[in-house]
Amino acid sequence: MTAENITRVILNNHIPSGIPKPSDFTVETVSAPTAEILKDNELLVRPLYLSCDPYMRNRIKGNGGFYVPDIQAKAAITGHGVCVVEASSSNKFAPGDHITTGLFDWAQKAIVPAEGRRKVSETDRVSLVDYIGVLGMPSFTAYVGTVVLGNPKKGETLLVTSAAGAVGQMVVQLAKARGLRVVAVAGSDDKIEFVKTLGADVAFNYKTCGNFEHAIHQAAPEGIDIYFDNVGGEFLDAALMNMRHHGRVIPCGMASQYNIAADDEYRMENFSQVIIRKLTIIGFLVMEYYPTASFTEFIAEVSTLYACGKITYKIDEIVGLENGPAALIDVFDGNSVGRRIIRV
Amino acid sequence: MTAENITRVILNNHIPSGIPKPSDFTVETVSAPTAEILKDNELLVRPLYLSCDPYMRNRIKGNGGFYVPDIQAKAAITGHGVCVVEASSSNKFAPGDHITTGLFDWAQKAIVPAEGRRKVSETDRVSLVDYIGVLGMPSFTAYVGTVVLGNPKKGETLLVTSAAGAVGQMVVQLAKARGLRVVAVAGSDDKIEFVKTLGADVAFNYKTCGNFEHAIHQAAPEGIDIYFDNVGGEFLDAALMNMRHHGRVIPCGMASQYNIAADDEYRMENFSQVIIRKLTIIGFLVMEYYPTASFTEFIAEVSTLYACGKITYKIDEIVGLENGPAALIDVFDGNSVGRRIIRV
Repeated sequence: MTAENITRVILNNHIPSGIPKPSDFTVETVSAPTAEILKDNELLVRPLYLSCDPYMRNRIKGNGGFYVPDIQAKAAITGHGVCVVEASSSNKFAPGDHITTGLFDWAQKAIVPAEGRRKVSETDRVSLVDYIGVLGMPSFTAYVGTVVLGNPKKGETLLVTSAAGAVGQMVVQLAKARGLRVVAVAGSDDKIEFVKTLGADVAFNYKTCGNFEHAIHQAAPEGIDIYFDNVGGEFLDAALMNMRHHGRVIPCGMASQYNIAADDEYRMENFSQVIIRKLTIIGFLVMEYYPTASFTEFIAEVSTLYACGKITYKIDEIVGLENGPAALIDVFDGNSVGRRIIRV
Repeated sequence: MTAENITRVILNNHIPSGIPKPSDFTVETVSAPTAEILKDNELLVRPLYLSCDPYMRNRIKGNGGFYVPDIQAKAAITGHGVCVVEASSSNKFAPGDHITTGLFDWAQKAIVPAEGRRKVSETDRVSLVDYIGVLGMPSFTAYVGTVVLGNPKKGETLLVTSAAGAVGQMVVQLAKARGLRVVAVAGSDDKIEFVKTLGADVAFNYKTCGNFEHAIHQAAPEGIDIYFDNVGGEFLDAALMNMRHHGRVIPCGMASQYNIAADDEYRMENFSQVIIRKLTIIGFLVMEYYPTASFTEFIAEVSTLYACGKITYKIDEIVGLENGPAALIDVFDGNSVGRRIIRV
């Protein structure tokens, strides 16, 4: 029997700054790993869907300073996904199982640790792709930040940036479902149209709005109670000047800083507003909420709302792992609406 | 009957930046206000003690951007104190009562609103000066930040700046009483000696320690669980790089920035650590905790510990309101150990 060939995507070298280019990645053909080389508690998996997420930019800088380990130079890209198990040395998973949670290689087949994975199944209400979509990590991130930590109260105003992205689209809908007024910010007219269809009360394009502080004030003269921050940098500073007293800031991502060299990162001017306005800022890592009661509540609420059509979730699907680098670069460059996934 | 003359201290003009000078204030002699001009719910009071606090620097900049109203140019300095009521148009207070809480004019007699004042009495355990000392606003500030918001756990490490000040000295002792390891930072060798007598496990002088980030790491190689921040600026940035995951930052003051012009204020580099280290930052205003269950608990705990000698509180007393400007300037310049008060 001859060895099976598979496609794999590797990072050529760390990319400290700038928008990555196609030449920063290699799509290569290699021999597939086989069940014979499984060690204890490992799985041979075949990814069905892999995701391209903004936070991955920080994992290819080579600075090791992020909350998820760096992707190594000359090694496969790793990210979230939904896979089918082809072989298992774990008593928790069997061939044919579908799994998600944790990182998977961008390869048509890969060996991964069984630890921390979660078995998922297709039902009449939920398809496999939904586990990387409406029930996926970014969606749960939105839930933890908005519902668990944000302490939202009916009638309050929530501001969210990257509102058309994988996290933002769910923040908008969860906040609206709780009776909040939602101000959504995104970077193109298409995205603005999209977030309005999700229920955002006001939406504006940060690339054309002019002064951020003024634009937020125009959109929310009453001030902001919760700022769900996906971008950091100058916009965060502007948001601080618009927070109501006792407001909550949920710093979830810093997309505005991901492509910037360390020395050029934005330096914050308005931190004193935390004292003046008595703000609470809560950093969190969504992985620490798997599994918790919050995760159970998330699955129950969101799968129900989704099944009855009260929540939508936009997936921006690209077909073929060989198109992975371009798909990922698009996300880093802001050229994607919804959650960008690769159908492997 | 001829009018009674009193001493009063006024601010000549707003002082946007720099350490204030004696010539920025006027000690003047004016006619005393009298009971005849009391409106409804006002008190004619005679201050016994007035305090000089670092936060007052932000109230003489004329920018109106702080959490306590600006002191007006050509008007009396206002601050915390303990007063005796000489006349009252409020049914809550009678002549001879002692009161505290809220702001009082720096004048030997003044008319103030009765609203928000609190009656206090001398007992065999507590003298009047203690209401501006161990039971005063800075001490309660330490309690709210450390105990109510900091969520301290035995064995954790707490870092506090301005540790020899009115707030810091109580933070050190409250944390030690709860079994925390305490790293105390102050700006002179005298202050360092003082905070060690309070129980600080390690203490260092920020003026001579060299690189802040390194100095904190040397003092707490295990990392910081709670940073009680009285200084802001560069030291806060350095502390963020030393926080343990899930650490709490209690931004209480920004003494490093108070004498600096707005354009020269420090710009923060390390805010991304809030996400990376999953930190919680909680701004608060102590006045919002009067009266609450926390205040009752504070009085009960601290007055008991104080009466049995398990807590001390250093007061740095200056006699005579005419010495008020110099006493205040000392505090802004860091030349005071403990809480600086004026015995009027």
